[in-house]
Amino acid sequence: MASKHTLEDRNFAKFRANVANRVNARLDTITKKSAVGPLFEPICQALHGGKRVRALLVIESARIHSADKRQAEYAAAAIECLHAYSLVHDDLPCMDDDQLRRGQPTIHVAWNEAVAVLTGDALQSLAFEVLSDGSYIPDSRTRVRLINRLARRAGSRGMAAGQAMDLAAEGSPSSVTMDDLSKIHRNKTGNLIEWSAEAGAILANQDADRIRQFARAIGLGYQIVDDLLDATGNTARTGKAVGKDLVSGKATFVTLLGEERARLRAHEQLEAAMAALDEYGSEADMLRRTARFAMLRDY
Amino acid sequence: MASKHTLEDRNFAKFRANVANRVNARLDTITKKSAVGPLFEPICQALHGGKRVRALLVIESARIHSADKRQAEYAAAAIECLHAYSLVHDDLPCMDDDQLRRGQPTIHVAWNEAVAVLTGDALQSLAFEVLSDGSYIPDSRTRVRLINRLARRAGSRGMAAGQAMDLAAEGSPSSVTMDDLSKIHRNKTGNLIEWSAEAGAILANQDADRIRQFARAIGLGYQIVDDLLDATGNTARTGKAVGKDLVSGKATFVTLLGEERARLRAHEQLEAAMAALDEYGSEADMLRRTARFAMLRDY
Repeated sequence: MASKHTLEDRNFAKFRANVANRVNARLDTITKKSAVGPLFEPICQALHGGKRVRALLVIESARIHSADKRQAEYAAAAIECLHAYSLVHDDLPCMDDDQLRRGQPTIHVAWNEAVAVLTGDALQSLAFEVLSDGSYIPDSRTRVRLINRLARRAGSRGMAAGQAMDLAAEGSPSSVTMDDLSKIHRNKTGNLIEWSAEAGAILANQDADRIRQFARAIGLGYQIVDDLLDATGNTARTGKAVGKDLVSGKATFVTLLGEERARLRAHEQLEAAMAALDEYGSEADMLRRTARFAMLRDY
Repeated sequence: MASKHTLEDRNFAKFRANVANRVNARLDTITKKSAVGPLFEPICQALHGGKRVRALLVIESARIHSADKRQAEYAAAAIECLHAYSLVHDDLPCMDDDQLRRGQPTIHVAWNEAVAVLTGDALQSLAFEVLSDGSYIPDSRTRVRLINRLARRAGSRGMAAGQAMDLAAEGSPSSVTMDDLSKIHRNKTGNLIEWSAEAGAILANQDADRIRQFARAIGLGYQIVDDLLDATGNTARTGKAVGKDLVSGKATFVTLLGEERARLRAHEQLEAAMAALDEYGSEADMLRRTARFAMLRDY
């Protein structure tokens, strides 16, 4: 059994590297076409690295729904732009005040706060520029569906709302319930993960309900693991500061549930994610592996 | 002659109030549909007031190109969301550090910096949400053209680039030339003004070249007038702090050209704008009046 796991791990590592290479090549095309100017360097640094989990989800969801591969790579690049914007702004001194991201100094540390604000702003625009470009995704109805979904998931009822709720909760951590926390993270983290999974179905003009169920489960599980890593991980592996939630007294799945029950809860989400993939059969094996990667990672 | 001007002024004031009411009603619909949540109040405050010059341009450009009126109102609302986002971020302490906007405390003053960052972020998403919504603008090709134009004009080769150049120029004001300054402002201010004018033509599926010429001239003229107002205006009229450029030693059209030549330059832009409207005949009278309003305003 051990050798089977090793082979599976090796295959998955190859697969991940392959997806990252393909998406990075698209990001390279995109930034050279659309971002050359005073913000080029910080934009490239903000896009550099990362686990590309959202990209993986787009690519694999597109594949199992028989969508066009090249179009999926551009959609994957777009969600990585949107995600990178959220990280740059999230790291700002007035937000999480982080110095380190993906093993590099954060944008406001390497440049300054104003450049970080503008870099995030420009990355958000870039995501919509990519999704609206007919040379990347030809069908205008598909483009506009992807855009409308993303705008709603990113905005004041989506990710930005989650961030605002998260900041408000920091002010009174003792009153935060499990329901609050789930709602915060479904908005804050879940939205982009759900978009990534549904994008594959939208690109193929297919129903996205089932794959969205899958994404919802791993979105929540992913955040529980993030909280576990902040409590128990190390900076060298995660590429960002750890132990911050404990110091700040912030409510997390770990402070609310304890480490053991948080792990159990993450495992339940992994099982729910797997169940949602049943109808896809063995075609969805890489998505299953991606879910395990997202939920069992140590970084 | 005096009475004729008074009548014209009165008509224009009525027209402006009418456009503002229509666009504000659309903004009300939009925010209640898409922004209810923890950022609702700051989003509404950020959208409140303003001269609605960009909205005027969309509405009038749409009218002279025979585009649908209701669709134009939603496009106007979208550009006001995008513009409001840029003001909220521009006012941040790490950017222009402004306390007052449209006669109200800025968002980071009334709430805090984190809320201001998120409010701007959510307003950018909201602009793209509105433009991608088929219940506002039915034709998907039109929507996607408006979105692609706006994303490019807002992003790292557009408005955000202009902001970054502006900040870089502040570091060495003595080396800034007229060409630099024109380029900064064409990016920073001109892009959204040009989008507003071209949107009317795009909504009607017509060529936007001529109306874009018009917008380019008033975009530059508008910024020269802004600089003149900072040098010579007063806070009670402008609803924002004045005299800031002088104190900060920033290069402006006034510091580079002197007040008299800056006024002359603004007048030249007004004439160029008028010339670009020739082919539209008397249909474009309200656009002519809008240009005069933008360039001859004292607030």
